[in-house]
Amino acid sequence: MDENRFVEFLRSEFPFKKGSGIGDDSSIVKIDKGFQLITKDVLIEGVHFDTSWFSPEEIAARALGVNLSDIAAMGGRPEYFFLGLGFPGHYKGEKLERFFMSLKKECQIWDVELAGGDLSASPDNLFISITMVGTAENPVRRDGALSGDLIGISRATGGSAVGLELLKKGVDIPFYSGKHKYPDPEIDKGIIFSKYVNSMIDISDGLMIDLGRIMSASGSAGCIDYGNIPVSDDMKEVCRKYDLDVTGLVLTGGEDFSLLFTITPENQKILAQTGIVFYIIGEVKDGFGVRAEHNGELVQLMVPGFDHFR
Amino acid sequence: MDENRFVEFLRSEFPFKKGSGIGDDSSIVKIDKGFQLITKDVLIEGVHFDTSWFSPEEIAARALGVNLSDIAAMGGRPEYFFLGLGFPGHYKGEKLERFFMSLKKECQIWDVELAGGDLSASPDNLFISITMVGTAENPVRRDGALSGDLIGISRATGGSAVGLELLKKGVDIPFYSGKHKYPDPEIDKGIIFSKYVNSMIDISDGLMIDLGRIMSASGSAGCIDYGNIPVSDDMKEVCRKYDLDVTGLVLTGGEDFSLLFTITPENQKILAQTGIVFYIIGEVKDGFGVRAEHNGELVQLMVPGFDHFR
Repeated sequence: MDENRFVEFLRSEFPFKKGSGIGDDSSIVKIDKGFQLITKDVLIEGVHFDTSWFSPEEIAARALGVNLSDIAAMGGRPEYFFLGLGFPGHYKGEKLERFFMSLKKECQIWDVELAGGDLSASPDNLFISITMVGTAENPVRRDGALSGDLIGISRATGGSAVGLELLKKGVDIPFYSGKHKYPDPEIDKGIIFSKYVNSMIDISDGLMIDLGRIMSASGSAGCIDYGNIPVSDDMKEVCRKYDLDVTGLVLTGGEDFSLLFTITPENQKILAQTGIVFYIIGEVKDGFGVRAEHNGELVQLMVPGFDHFR
Repeated sequence: MDENRFVEFLRSEFPFKKGSGIGDDSSIVKIDKGFQLITKDVLIEGVHFDTSWFSPEEIAARALGVNLSDIAAMGGRPEYFFLGLGFPGHYKGEKLERFFMSLKKECQIWDVELAGGDLSASPDNLFISITMVGTAENPVRRDGALSGDLIGISRATGGSAVGLELLKKGVDIPFYSGKHKYPDPEIDKGIIFSKYVNSMIDISDGLMIDLGRIMSASGSAGCIDYGNIPVSDDMKEVCRKYDLDVTGLVLTGGEDFSLLFTITPENQKILAQTGIVFYIIGEVKDGFGVRAEHNGELVQLMVPGFDHFR
């Protein structure tokens, strides 16, 4: 069973009656005024990060950031969170305090509060589980894309993956490694987008994978024109210099936490008039699946994305 | 820094303004009708359970049960939860499916729903983090004990610790190992108690440790009369037979998830008239700390309880 099929298995075995449950970036429960969003993301040493590349400060920022982005992906405002932490012997003392002091700083940056949690020793690996609570007036799910919608993106992709690939080669260019280490969740943009879009997700596993999630949930097909995706000259140059596949990284690199959405052409015009920056990169069609074209040719993708069940 | 001091450090560095945060079994946030309770408990293979003793079914029941009990400890009704799971290679496939099928059965028993979460591979250890959401009309905290209150307990203690000690000796007596493996959270009792008591906690780390938490939060002292604690003849006999310290296990054994509370003498009379079963085992006094007496003599305790920071 692969990850998608296992999530389907869970969704059928565990229907959630009090709200929208498994399958979106956050769960949605109706409250008195609007909706409560709750999301939970797990980070495990050796799977999601390597303590030889990541400082305690960076791990705290990343753990918080990926959860903030899951609330942003639904058009919500993060409010407070619960922290589950398993720390191995090598993380006790100074590193643990640095982790928490960084967490405190990030809380101030993003205006969220630590509300509780559980700390435990762990035999081997650092394990972090954050449950983030937020609110939304217009929570946006993945399953609302309609044929004829335009596909939009809030900012460039691939930068985090370039940072990671460079770190693997022993090269640390702060602009790119910073994108990998310090997620930059688009909370304010997500709230504005939520008033106009039909579906939304944050790009955590790669543009094509996450577009595929929207299309699979919505029962539609997504077609991207690679030429419309913003790619900086600097990133092209860095990829040439270090022999990285820029097209592959832009389309399949994970963890940029850009927002990906679909919007009607009418609402796209209204959203453009607000002055907010976004890029239209494709179109929703009848059918299923996703593809990217470049100068009219299909782009062949080698990296299918990450699957914890493989 | 020990665990208590670290929690104090966190409480001072991370004040929670939207509700009652770090320091109780669950966090409390005011909602339209009553209060929302949220709690998070982490279970790690090799720290909280051993996969050679615990089946996937038992691990699921335990992970859910400890979190249900944290809501019960505040007088709340659990409603839904989020699951963070890191599974090592040896847990993929059949064991993971057994875990989830048991979780589904437990959800039906306790009338709670899985609302979302995150699954991930894990390099070495099984790691489970559950965030449970509930509601309460009268959330009861730890810090309300007053000098002159009586100390009450919902049911016997020590059975789970007896089960664990027997398992360590290779002896499996289902009545006791079951108490260790299948937590039995006292949700309905907790809700009734919540209308009458001044403070409450569930006994997860041992009667004296958890009583100490109430007293420390309340700024009072707790004195237990060991002779008033219910201890079954069978448990005394089993402890004699297997050379276990019954007094020590009753006073310091963890994970019985009995409810421990303090109540005014007036309310104790009213609560007794409801017919609900509970035992008065001591009294709250001025001062600080906790102690247990038996036939007028101080009981010397050897086991100080579990501290993840040691």
